[in-house]
Amino acid sequence: MIKIGYLGPKGTFSQEATLRYIEERKIEDYEIYEYNGISDLIFAVDNKEIDEGVAPIENSLEGAVNVTLDILAADVNLMIKDEIVISIVQNLLIKKGTDPDKIQCIISHPQPIGQCRKFINSKYPNAHIKYVYSTAGAAEEVAQGDGSKAAIGSAIAANVYGLEMLEKGIQDSEINATRFAVIARNDSVRTGNDKTSIVFSTEDKPGSLYRILDIFNLWDINMTRIESRPAKNELGKYIFFIDLLGHKDDEDLKDALTMVKRKSSFYKFLGSYPIFA
Amino acid sequence: MIKIGYLGPKGTFSQEATLRYIEERKIEDYEIYEYNGISDLIFAVDNKEIDEGVAPIENSLEGAVNVTLDILAADVNLMIKDEIVISIVQNLLIKKGTDPDKIQCIISHPQPIGQCRKFINSKYPNAHIKYVYSTAGAAEEVAQGDGSKAAIGSAIAANVYGLEMLEKGIQDSEINATRFAVIARNDSVRTGNDKTSIVFSTEDKPGSLYRILDIFNLWDINMTRIESRPAKNELGKYIFFIDLLGHKDDEDLKDALTMVKRKSSFYKFLGSYPIFA
Repeated sequence: MIKIGYLGPKGTFSQEATLRYIEERKIEDYEIYEYNGISDLIFAVDNKEIDEGVAPIENSLEGAVNVTLDILAADVNLMIKDEIVISIVQNLLIKKGTDPDKIQCIISHPQPIGQCRKFINSKYPNAHIKYVYSTAGAAEEVAQGDGSKAAIGSAIAANVYGLEMLEKGIQDSEINATRFAVIARNDSVRTGNDKTSIVFSTEDKPGSLYRILDIFNLWDINMTRIESRPAKNELGKYIFFIDLLGHKDDEDLKDALTMVKRKSSFYKFLGSYPIFA
Repeated sequence: MIKIGYLGPKGTFSQEATLRYIEERKIEDYEIYEYNGISDLIFAVDNKEIDEGVAPIENSLEGAVNVTLDILAADVNLMIKDEIVISIVQNLLIKKGTDPDKIQCIISHPQPIGQCRKFINSKYPNAHIKYVYSTAGAAEEVAQGDGSKAAIGSAIAANVYGLEMLEKGIQDSEINATRFAVIARNDSVRTGNDKTSIVFSTEDKPGSLYRILDIFNLWDINMTRIESRPAKNELGKYIFFIDLLGHKDDEDLKDALTMVKRKSSFYKFLGSYPIFA
């Protein structure tokens, strides 16, 4: 039996991603566990409370999920064994049976508020905007309120907190997707359609990142993503997360990674895993 | 007279950075304006309400300030004319005259809470942690509370909200600095010790980022920072923010930028400005 953890509370897109992962990979024998923070979730995999954790890693509008990257780089020796991409659909949620015309306040996390700016300005230009720490928290506040508040959140949040979806798909852009990483103690076997993630820091001299990318150029390896994060020991020093097409068991990629490891001052292999299609 | 805006509310590190900027550059004839969000601040420069806006752009622990980067790339045609780096010192703030032994709840933004994790675990292992949207908001809540709450925030926040600094410098790491950009309608003249910022997206084919970095290698130009942000039209497409040593009026840098402009599908010059010493 596989113990799978996700980032709660219930009603988040992380829960949706986890259900999607279980369905997509046809996992039959599993138990699901909820964690309150990304770090709690990943550490639970590290100390073997659970086998796998489904953590957000990147959003098409908001970019990298820094906590996930930072923990993978610095705090644990875990790997990415799979990825799931889900579309993010935001909805306007109200307390069941209340009057939509009485909405005076719209509550959500700054991210969904930002994603629904045009909708709010055209439909509720006079509403007070209240920022809270999670969309699930916003849904809960609306459920406990007097009907003057509306939340922006997922269909799952509406379901969990018994709210009515007054308007569906209210985000400004259709192109809103989040990529989740399945974090485990081992990565995946070669499927022929794989991706590999690494993190490294370069030597502290001019052109050192260029020389690493030169290795991929030499071995004809396609880099699909580069993300820099602070090294945390000095402003202006960085570590780099890179995604490459291919599996660590492919000859060329294996050779390239050997060179990167030699040419970097810090290097960590983060796993080879099937590309989500 | 120069009209300078900063990111409020009062008591934030942005206010501190602004005062430092005014002192450092010996600006004598100025007026200060407070804005409630980074986007409001930058748009105020764009529509000429103010002349300059001091916006956070990068922290040594938390990384890039995405809102600032995204607005500079997509929404305005403004430039960085200067930079200021300030050290971030976190303090435990309580209501004046209340008993430190009665603290049951510690309130702050997730970022300072994360930065003071070791302090909290050793001194207040049983305190309830409450996450709020800004450190200034946390300070305000403590000021209005019954003495059972403490906030984590700046010395300025303590001052503005009349709180007592029970413990000073409680952050886990000494190395916590934030870089602010002074955003204006023009950049700065050459001083001989300058930096240049650009943003671009590469053509959609393998190795295209490598070919841009190849230009800097060719012209012997030192890249001090690369930051990727989502292009926002598709998951997996990015734009890149790059800082380079030198001024746009330096011959080599000028030639390199001309090539970058030709080899990128989107390009924007974000200004040359003196390096903060």
